[in-house]
Amino acid sequence: MKNQTYQKLETLFKRRHLINESQGMLHWDMAAMMPPGGAESRGEQLAVLATLSHGILTGPEVGDLLGEADDLGNLSEWQSANLREMRRQWVHATAVSSELVEAHSKACSTSETLWRSARAEGDFKAVLPALEKVLSLTIEIAEAKAEALDCSPYDALLSQYEPDYSSKEIDILFSKLEEFLPDFIEEVIAKQAAEPAVLALKGPFDIEKQKALGMTFMKALGFDFDHGRLDVSLHPFCGGTAQDVRITTRYDESDFTSALMGVLHETGHAMYERGLPKEWQHQPVGQALGMSVHESQSLLIEMQACRSLEFLQYAVPLMNKTFKGSGPAWDLDNFQRLYTRVERSFIRVDADEATYPAHVIMRYNLEHALVSGDLKAADLPTAWNESLKKILNITPPSDREGVLQDIHWFDGAIGYFPTYTLGAMTAAQLFDSALTQDKTILSGIAKGDFSSLMGWLTDAVHSHGSCLSAHDILTKATGRPLDVEVFKKHLQTRYLD
Amino acid sequence: MKNQTYQKLETLFKRRHLINESQGMLHWDMAAMMPPGGAESRGEQLAVLATLSHGILTGPEVGDLLGEADDLGNLSEWQSANLREMRRQWVHATAVSSELVEAHSKACSTSETLWRSARAEGDFKAVLPALEKVLSLTIEIAEAKAEALDCSPYDALLSQYEPDYSSKEIDILFSKLEEFLPDFIEEVIAKQAAEPAVLALKGPFDIEKQKALGMTFMKALGFDFDHGRLDVSLHPFCGGTAQDVRITTRYDESDFTSALMGVLHETGHAMYERGLPKEWQHQPVGQALGMSVHESQSLLIEMQACRSLEFLQYAVPLMNKTFKGSGPAWDLDNFQRLYTRVERSFIRVDADEATYPAHVIMRYNLEHALVSGDLKAADLPTAWNESLKKILNITPPSDREGVLQDIHWFDGAIGYFPTYTLGAMTAAQLFDSALTQDKTILSGIAKGDFSSLMGWLTDAVHSHGSCLSAHDILTKATGRPLDVEVFKKHLQTRYLD
Repeated sequence: MKNQTYQKLETLFKRRHLINESQGMLHWDMAAMMPPGGAESRGEQLAVLATLSHGILTGPEVGDLLGEADDLGNLSEWQSANLREMRRQWVHATAVSSELVEAHSKACSTSETLWRSARAEGDFKAVLPALEKVLSLTIEIAEAKAEALDCSPYDALLSQYEPDYSSKEIDILFSKLEEFLPDFIEEVIAKQAAEPAVLALKGPFDIEKQKALGMTFMKALGFDFDHGRLDVSLHPFCGGTAQDVRITTRYDESDFTSALMGVLHETGHAMYERGLPKEWQHQPVGQALGMSVHESQSLLIEMQACRSLEFLQYAVPLMNKTFKGSGPAWDLDNFQRLYTRVERSFIRVDADEATYPAHVIMRYNLEHALVSGDLKAADLPTAWNESLKKILNITPPSDREGVLQDIHWFDGAIGYFPTYTLGAMTAAQLFDSALTQDKTILSGIAKGDFSSLMGWLTDAVHSHGSCLSAHDILTKATGRPLDVEVFKKHLQTRYLD
Repeated sequence: MKNQTYQKLETLFKRRHLINESQGMLHWDMAAMMPPGGAESRGEQLAVLATLSHGILTGPEVGDLLGEADDLGNLSEWQSANLREMRRQWVHATAVSSELVEAHSKACSTSETLWRSARAEGDFKAVLPALEKVLSLTIEIAEAKAEALDCSPYDALLSQYEPDYSSKEIDILFSKLEEFLPDFIEEVIAKQAAEPAVLALKGPFDIEKQKALGMTFMKALGFDFDHGRLDVSLHPFCGGTAQDVRITTRYDESDFTSALMGVLHETGHAMYERGLPKEWQHQPVGQALGMSVHESQSLLIEMQACRSLEFLQYAVPLMNKTFKGSGPAWDLDNFQRLYTRVERSFIRVDADEATYPAHVIMRYNLEHALVSGDLKAADLPTAWNESLKKILNITPPSDREGVLQDIHWFDGAIGYFPTYTLGAMTAAQLFDSALTQDKTILSGIAKGDFSSLMGWLTDAVHSHGSCLSAHDILTKATGRPLDVEVFKKHLQTRYLD
C-alpha cells in the first residue's frame, strides 16, 4: 500500500519530467536553430507544455498522494530524498495562486520588452513603472512562498534557485568578501601594472577552427558527443537533457579566447548533467542541485582548472598550432597574463574572476533591500552608482552601463545573483580539496587528461544528484561547509603570489 | 450556447495541435540533430506527448462536446468543415481500444527492428512471424475502424492516410495504368536506346556548394528562410510546423543531382504547408489534406516543373557555374536525358517517373489481398516476384531487392502505397491545368521565377487547408475529378514525343 503511493508519485513525476525535457529541447531549438518566423507558435507550444507540467504538479492526484505519503516508512535513502524533492517542488508550485503566477509572467514579459529599448537608450525612467509592477508582484509571490516555506520573503525567492542557502549564511560569507575585495583588487592592479603588458592576439580567427579546437577541449574534459552537441546561440548556455546535453557558444572572428572559455564553462555544466545518476534521471532526486553547485561545476572548469598553468601548458601549444600563432603574444607567459588580468569595469558579464564577486555582492545587497522595502525602485540608479563606487571605486558613464545592464530584475529574477559567487566559492573549495586528495589531477591536466579530476567530481558531486544537499556534499567532499577563506586564499595565491 | 460548444472544441483542438507541433519538432530534431545517446529519452518524451494529445482527443470532454455539436447551426463554411475534421479525427481515435493500439505499436516496433537485419541478410523468414503479428493486429484495427467508418477494412486503413479516395476508385484508376504501363515502358526504353547515351557528371561535388545551390532553388520556389530551414538527415523529409518548416536532404559527394531533386521535392511539400491558411493554423481544418494531395505538391515541383525544359534552361547554367562543369556531359541536352531516363529496376525509391507507378500498383494489389485474406504473409515473396515479373518483366536477385526493400508493411503502414501514384496523377492534372490557365508559368520558370506557379497553387490548393476535399479541389481547379488520361498523356508527351 505504502509502496503503491510512492510508485504512483514516481509515475506522475516521471511524466512531468519528460514534458519538462521536451520543453528543454524546444528551448534549445529556439535559441540555436529556430528561424524567426517560428517564434509565435513556439511561444504557444512552450506555454501549453508548461501548463501540462504544472497541471500534473498542482493537480489533485499529486497533492493527495503526498498527503498519504506523510507516514511512509520502508523507503530507501534515495526514495526518501526523492519524496522530499517532490514535496519541495509541490510547495513552490502550490504556494502561489495561478492568477498571481500569470500576472507576474505577463508583467515580466512587458518589462523585459521595455527593458531592451530602455537599456539601448540608457533610459531607466522608461522602464521604471514596468519594473515597479514586476517588483510588487515578485514580492507578493515571495510573501506567499515565505509563509509556505517558513522563511523570509527574500529567502523564499532565493530558494527558487538555491534551496540550500539562507540569506543569513550569505550575509556572513559576503560581508567577509566585501571587506576583503577593495584592498585586494587595488593590490592586484598595482602588481599587474608593474608587469609586462598583455599582448593582443591578432586575428581573424577562422570560426571552423575555433569550433574544432573547442571540441578538442570538450573531448579532453570527457564530453561524449554521442550524448550531446555544441552549437551557436546569441547567449551561450547549457540546455537539453542529461542524456543529450546541448551546449552553445558564440564566436568572434577577432577573438578566439572568449568563445573558448565559454565552451569550457558550459562543458563544466554539461559534465555535471552527464554525471547525474542515470537510474534516477526522470525523478526529482536525479536532477542537479541548485545554482550554487551547478555554477560551481562550470567555474571549477573555467576558472580553477582552465586558467591554471598546467592547463595552459597543454592548451597553448594547441592554440598555436590551430591558429599558426607566432611571436611573443603566443607565448605561454602572455596567455597566463591574459587569463589572469584584473581590471575594474562596469559590466558584470565581462568582469574577471577577482572583480566579479564585487558586482555580485552589490546586486545582492540592493535586491535584498528592494524586497525588504528599504530601497525603492525609483532610487535604484543612485543606489547602484553609490554601491559600485564603494566596492570598485568606479562610476558608470550612464545607466546603460549601470543599473540597466542585467536582465534579471526586469525579468522578475530576484534571488539569483548570489548564486554566481556562491558557485565561485564552492568551485575554489572543491578544487582545492580535489588537488589535495588526488595528486594526479594537475599532472593529468598538463597532458590534457581530465579523467582524474572528472572522476573525483563525479564521486564527490555529480553522482549524488539531489540526494544530498549542497552543504552535505561540500562537507563530505572537503571536510567543512562553505568557507570563504579558501576562496580568498585562491585569489591571493593566483593574483598576488 | 451553440457557439460556446464550438469554441470549447476549438480550444481543445488548439491545445492538441500545439502538442502535436511539439512532437513534430522533436521528431525533426531526432532525425536531423540528435546524437545517438538521446534516443532512449526521446522515445519516452514522444510517447508522453502522444499520450497527452491522444488523451485530449479521446477524453470525455471532446466526446461530449461533439455530441452536443450535432445540431449546431449558424456555423460558417470553415467552422462546419472544422467540426467535420474534428469528428473524423475523433472517430479514428475512438474506434480502436487503447490496448489494441498499444499492442499494434509494440508489434510494429519489434517487427521494424527485425526487418532491419532481415533486409540486410535478405532473410524474409527471419521477420515473417513478426510480420504476421503486425498484419493480424493491423487487420483487427482495420475491422474496428471499418465498422465506425462504414467502409471496407482496407478502405479504413487507406483513410488513415488518404480520406478522400476509396479502393473502388483506386481500382479503376490503377487498372487503366496497369494496362497502359508495360507496353509504354517497353516503347520508351526502345526509343531511348536509339538516342545518345547519358553522360556521367564527374565529381566530387563539394557539399557546401550543393547546399548553396539547393538553397538558391528553394528561394526561387518561394521558400522563406525566416520560416524554415534546410538540414541533413538519413531519410529526406519535410517536418516541423507550418510557420517553421524543416526540410532535410542527404548529400552524396559523387552525385549532386539526387540531393538537389530531393530538395526540390521536399520544398514542394514545404510550400504546401506554408500556403495553408494561417488563421486556421492550429485547427484541424487548417491542416493539409491527405497524402495524395500532399504528395501531388512535391511531385508537381520535382517531376512536373523541375524536369521541364524550361526549368533546365534556368537551372543548368547555375549548375555549370556552381561546379565549374565543362564538356558535353554539362550540356542542357544531357541533363534533359539524365532527368528523363527510364529504366526497369528493382528498388521503388530509385525508380523513375515512368516505372514508379508500376512499383506502387503491384504493392497496392498485394496489400489489398493481404487485408482481404486472399494472400498469406508467408506467400508474399513468391507473389511479389510474380507481380514484378508481370508488370515490369524483371525478377529481383533476392528478397533484399524484393519484398524486403520497403519498411511500410513491417511497420504496420498498409494503405499508404497508393497515395504515391494518386499524388503523381494529381500533380500531372494540376500542372496541366495551371499551364492552360496561366501562360506566364512556364516562361517564368525558365527565368527561375516560380511566383505565377506558386500563386496558382496557393489559390487552387494550399489556401483551402482541409476545408474542401481532394475531389473538390481537383474539380474546382481542373474542371474534373482525378483523370488517369491526363497522367498518361503527360507520360506520352514527355517520353515518346
